[in-house]
Amino acid sequence: MSALAAANLGITVHIYTPEKNSPASKVSAHTIVADYTDHKALSVFAKGVDAITYEFENIPVETVNFLKQKKPVFPDEKLLEVSQDRIIEKSFLNEIGIETTRWKRFENKQSALDAFEEWNANAVILKTTRFGYDGKGQIKLFKSENINEAIKHLNGEIIIEEMVDFSYEISIICARDVKKNIITYGPMLNEHKDHILHTTTVPAGISSEIAKQADKIIKNIAQNIDLKGVLTLELFVTKDGKLLANEIAPRTHNSGHWSMDACLYSQFDNHIRSVCDLTVIEPQRHSDAIMLNLIGDDILKVEKQMKKKGAYLHNYGKTEIRKGRKMGHINFLSPKTSPTTSE
Amino acid sequence: MSALAAANLGITVHIYTPEKNSPASKVSAHTIVADYTDHKALSVFAKGVDAITYEFENIPVETVNFLKQKKPVFPDEKLLEVSQDRIIEKSFLNEIGIETTRWKRFENKQSALDAFEEWNANAVILKTTRFGYDGKGQIKLFKSENINEAIKHLNGEIIIEEMVDFSYEISIICARDVKKNIITYGPMLNEHKDHILHTTTVPAGISSEIAKQADKIIKNIAQNIDLKGVLTLELFVTKDGKLLANEIAPRTHNSGHWSMDACLYSQFDNHIRSVCDLTVIEPQRHSDAIMLNLIGDDILKVEKQMKKKGAYLHNYGKTEIRKGRKMGHINFLSPKTSPTTSE
Repeated sequence: MSALAAANLGITVHIYTPEKNSPASKVSAHTIVADYTDHKALSVFAKGVDAITYEFENIPVETVNFLKQKKPVFPDEKLLEVSQDRIIEKSFLNEIGIETTRWKRFENKQSALDAFEEWNANAVILKTTRFGYDGKGQIKLFKSENINEAIKHLNGEIIIEEMVDFSYEISIICARDVKKNIITYGPMLNEHKDHILHTTTVPAGISSEIAKQADKIIKNIAQNIDLKGVLTLELFVTKDGKLLANEIAPRTHNSGHWSMDACLYSQFDNHIRSVCDLTVIEPQRHSDAIMLNLIGDDILKVEKQMKKKGAYLHNYGKTEIRKGRKMGHINFLSPKTSPTTSE
Repeated sequence: MSALAAANLGITVHIYTPEKNSPASKVSAHTIVADYTDHKALSVFAKGVDAITYEFENIPVETVNFLKQKKPVFPDEKLLEVSQDRIIEKSFLNEIGIETTRWKRFENKQSALDAFEEWNANAVILKTTRFGYDGKGQIKLFKSENINEAIKHLNGEIIIEEMVDFSYEISIICARDVKKNIITYGPMLNEHKDHILHTTTVPAGISSEIAKQADKIIKNIAQNIDLKGVLTLELFVTKDGKLLANEIAPRTHNSGHWSMDACLYSQFDNHIRSVCDLTVIEPQRHSDAIMLNLIGDDILKVEKQMKKKGAYLHNYGKTEIRKGRKMGHINFLSPKTSPTTSE
C-alpha cells in the first residue's frame, strides 16, 4: 500500500524482503529477496535507492544501522529499538512522562508475587518482551496458578503488566517530516476479535478532551525521538477516562487503513512523503469510515458486505489463505459528521 | 493508473507495450516490450493472463483480433474500430440516431467546395480520419484558401467537418459489465489550451437537462455496441443548447482523472472491474473537483498549486519531459455541492 502511494508520486520503489512473491513486489519496479542479515544483498539494495524505509518492526536494528551508513533510513533505529522491546518501550514512555499500565520486569517467581501484592491484583499479564503480536506471546496469570508452569511457553525476557479494566482501545497515527511538520490520523476506535484487530471506527465517538490528549501524547513521542516517518500509538482508555499508552509501532498501521478511502491523503501517502523529503500534508478526511479486517477465509465471503453503500474492498493479493492471516479489508464510508482533533 | 486500481483488488497485472520504461511497468508484475504486430510475443503474453484490456485506441484492430482467439479482450474490436476512424465513428453515431457536427468525406477539391456551399460556411475543419490527437492532424480551411496547399500536411484519408460555434465542451464516461450494469462519470466540463485538455470541472455547472441528455447518449452507445469495459464520449454543447457528439475513446479518459480522488470508485477501478468479470459499482462521488493537467515542464512548477487546500498531485513518473507531454495532474477537491445525473 505504501508502494501504491509512491506510484502516485512517480517514485520508483525497490523492495527488500526475505519473502518470495510478496504483495509489494507485484507493484514495485525491483525486488531483492534475501535475509535481513545478508550484508552483500543489503549493499546492492542500498546502491539502487535514494532513501530507505521499512514497514515491519521486527527487522534487526543492526540491519538499519548497516543500511544507514549507505543511504538515509527513516524512521531511524531509535524508534525501531523502542518498538521492538516492551521494556524499552514502557521505560521510554514513562521517562518522557507518558503514563502506561503498571509493569515490572519478570526476574523470577518473586517478581510476579510482588506484582500481585503491590498492585493488589488477582491476575496479571505476562508477555514476552519481543516479537509478540496479535495476542501471541502473552498469557493471563492468576494468583492461584503455578508460575513456572505458566511461563513455559513464553520465550526470552518477560514483562509483567497490570491487567487494566479498560473501557475501550484507541489508536492514533502521526507523520512528521524533516522540517518538523506533523500531522495526525484519528484517534480511531479499535475493536478486536481473537486478539486480532477486527474493526476501526473514525471518528472514534470519544470526548474531544480524550482526543486532544491522545494527540498531545503522540506528538510528544514524535518530537522526543525527532521522528521522520510515521508512527502509531495504541492507547487504552480506562473506565475513569484515563489514557494509558500501550504500544508503539514505527510504521503505518492496520488501524489507519480507512484513510486510503476516507482522506485525500492516506497514511501511506504521508509515509512516503515524510521519508522522501516531501512535506507531510493534512489528511483532509472527507468521510466517516469503518474499516473491517478480512481475516483468513473472510476474503472469500465479501459479497454481502460489498452490497452495502460506501463499501470499498482492498484485497492484498496474498496467494495463500491461512487462519488468522490478514487477507484484506473493507472500508465502509459515510458522509462526514464531526471533525477529529487534527481537522 | 489502471494497474494501481488492479492492485487494490489483488489482481496481478502483466503489461504489453512497445515502450521501454513505461510508467505502468513500474507498478506491474511482468512486462513484455514488443511491437503490437509481434505474434510470438503476443502469444506469450496471452498465455500468462486471464483477461486482456487496452488503454490506447491506436493499437491495430488486428492485434485485438489475434489476442481474442486466445483470451478474452475487452472492450472488443468493434468499439476500437469505431474509435480509430473519424468517418466510421461519425457514421456509426449518426446511424444510431446521435447527432454530430455535419461532415463529409474529402474525395477531392470539389468535396470541400460543396461543403462550403451546403453548410453556407466561410471555413471548415479538415482532419485526418486516423491517428489524430491533441489538435494534431487537423487544419482550419477558409473558403479563400488553396485547398491543395492546405491538405499537404494531412496524411491518409481526410474528413471535412463543419465548424461548430459551440459554447463549451463536455465529456462523459461510462463503464459497463458483462451483466449489463452500467455506471457513468460526469458529465464534466473540459477546457483546452493549445488543443490539449487543460482543466476538467465536475460538476460541470450545466443544466440538468443537458446532463441527462449526455447520459442518455452515452448509454445508447454502450448498449448498442454491447460494451464490456469503459468508453468516453466528448460532446460539444452549441450556443442554442444542442448536444453534438464529437469523439469516442474506447478507454478511461484524461477528463476522468478527477475520479481518482473525488470518488470512492474511480474510472480506473470500474475499468478493471468491468474487464475482470466483476460488477461495476457507482462512483459515489464525495467531493467536487477540478483537475489541472501538468503539461511539459508544468510538472516542475507545482509548489504554488500544491499549497491550495484540497490539492493532490499525481506524477506519472515519466522519465523525460517533453513540450506538450502529459506529465501528471493535480486534482483540487472541495466539498460536494450538487449531484450529477448519475448520483
